[in-house]
Amino acid sequence: MSDTATLSQLFASIEDDLHLVDKTFEEATSSDMDMLTAAVVHVLGSQGKRLRIALTLLSGKLIQYRFEKLLPLSVALEMVHLATLVHDDIVDHATTRRDIPTVNALFGDNIAILLGDYLFAKTAGLVAEVEDFRVDRLFSETVARICEGTIMEMLSVRQLDLSIEHYIERVSRKTACLMSACCKGGAIVAQGSEAQIALLEQYGTNLGIAFQIIDDVLDYTGTATSIGKPAGNDLRQGLVTLPLIYALKHERNGRLEKVSALVGQAQPEDAEVTDVVRWVRDSPAIGEALELARHYAARARALLSEFPSSPERGVLEDVVEFVVARSR
Amino acid sequence: MSDTATLSQLFASIEDDLHLVDKTFEEATSSDMDMLTAAVVHVLGSQGKRLRIALTLLSGKLIQYRFEKLLPLSVALEMVHLATLVHDDIVDHATTRRDIPTVNALFGDNIAILLGDYLFAKTAGLVAEVEDFRVDRLFSETVARICEGTIMEMLSVRQLDLSIEHYIERVSRKTACLMSACCKGGAIVAQGSEAQIALLEQYGTNLGIAFQIIDDVLDYTGTATSIGKPAGNDLRQGLVTLPLIYALKHERNGRLEKVSALVGQAQPEDAEVTDVVRWVRDSPAIGEALELARHYAARARALLSEFPSSPERGVLEDVVEFVVARSR
Repeated sequence: MSDTATLSQLFASIEDDLHLVDKTFEEATSSDMDMLTAAVVHVLGSQGKRLRIALTLLSGKLIQYRFEKLLPLSVALEMVHLATLVHDDIVDHATTRRDIPTVNALFGDNIAILLGDYLFAKTAGLVAEVEDFRVDRLFSETVARICEGTIMEMLSVRQLDLSIEHYIERVSRKTACLMSACCKGGAIVAQGSEAQIALLEQYGTNLGIAFQIIDDVLDYTGTATSIGKPAGNDLRQGLVTLPLIYALKHERNGRLEKVSALVGQAQPEDAEVTDVVRWVRDSPAIGEALELARHYAARARALLSEFPSSPERGVLEDVVEFVVARSR
Repeated sequence: MSDTATLSQLFASIEDDLHLVDKTFEEATSSDMDMLTAAVVHVLGSQGKRLRIALTLLSGKLIQYRFEKLLPLSVALEMVHLATLVHDDIVDHATTRRDIPTVNALFGDNIAILLGDYLFAKTAGLVAEVEDFRVDRLFSETVARICEGTIMEMLSVRQLDLSIEHYIERVSRKTACLMSACCKGGAIVAQGSEAQIALLEQYGTNLGIAFQIIDDVLDYTGTATSIGKPAGNDLRQGLVTLPLIYALKHERNGRLEKVSALVGQAQPEDAEVTDVVRWVRDSPAIGEALELARHYAARARALLSEFPSSPERGVLEDVVEFVVARSR
């Protein structure tokens, strides 16, 4: 059974609502410009797990299910995700994502820049439908933090000497911040107490950090078939992630020079990348990275235990397990 | 006396408030990331006439001066303008704007993409401070329309056979839409009636169309010194604007082939550009374009006459005159 199927099972309780989400997506992004519509349809068609939608709906449902407000919010936050992916792919010169051509590859960088902007604009419209000023501020802060995280990542490219703290901060801003916003936003819309809102915000942050660590581990341990891109992709881009940080901690002397030369190169040889990937994969680094991911996952779970037991709490707990156990 | 000085005189009545605007700009865009701060400071330092800020404040003042709400709104809408310029300059591969290096030229395309996104995010935060859901929707719709206008322009590059209607529609979305949002937003915040809001929205649209026509005329009649870029810049980029549309209407046979060849080229020779610029400049096209600009300007003025006479109405009328009389 694929991971996506597993996730669908987890989300069975909100399945009907997820269908309404699709309709909202289409309505919210319609334009009288064919080129824009074609690009939007392409982006919507290449959506992944839609984890952010589910997190928003489930966080709301954990407290009080006000679906008419959760619907625009969940679509808005997934759309922020899509908009940042569209712009990220330009920045990374990525030609495919999950084996599907990127917008920049299909339509060119210029259309991709404007499509991202257009999706941000439409997101703001959906956020406005929620009619809660706290959500307006959350949206603004979240997008600003993601931009900061992306710039942080950009500036850390080809930097070998990164601390774990730097990595966690970067990942918090770039990835965890949006998952946190989904959970926090869901709680706000559900009229949760300050304490409930803070708990779900932290749940999302910890979940998001665990999620990104696993993503970065899979970039070393996965195969092109399982993760939809060749292993060592980050390394090839000169991006140092947690597994490599751990690996270098142990074995600086023997390998440092080789890894440094590799990370410093704009277009490293495949054989060199494979060599370093294999070295990291066979080192204790993967185990250590997984342990740190499980640490954040455990924190996420613990935060949920503050809520009374319920089917929704159960699903949010399962999401944590899914995130650390996934292989793609 | 320079045009900017003239505009400052027009805005003398809101001069003190304009200083507060600067402070709000700085506070709203502060980041703990040096690279981002440096890019923001550069963008704020290269701001032009700040016409959008003045339009927002004056439109509000025409009805009821609620400065505490008009302040974040005016900064937000000027910031939308700055964000779109930052992204436009990437799309156009522009290296300077008003003789100042562009963000993409100084910091690279990737930082420019993210700076634009960051400014959009911060804009959403300022819009949230206004705490009016109509303004939230206006912000979303305006940014979406600007994106559509920019894509419309992008798709019309190297197209010679454009109608005046197409040109006006493109200009309405790309330029006039934001000026219209400033005036409409000011009226909303000032708690104007539906009729007042609609009048100011239309005032902004007509003013914005007149503004862009003049901009496009100046690209044929201006000098590098007066407009901060060499004449014929649009033509060099393959962009057909109103003066050329009019010129081709009169003299298709003699010139069509030559102009068509020029517009079709990615990097035309300077001499060829100068030749076509001179031909358009010496044709009746400039006069006709100016006449159309004056037609929209007159409509903008007429809409103001629905408001009782006041100093603010006087300034908004003078803005119309300034826009059509300006030489840069």
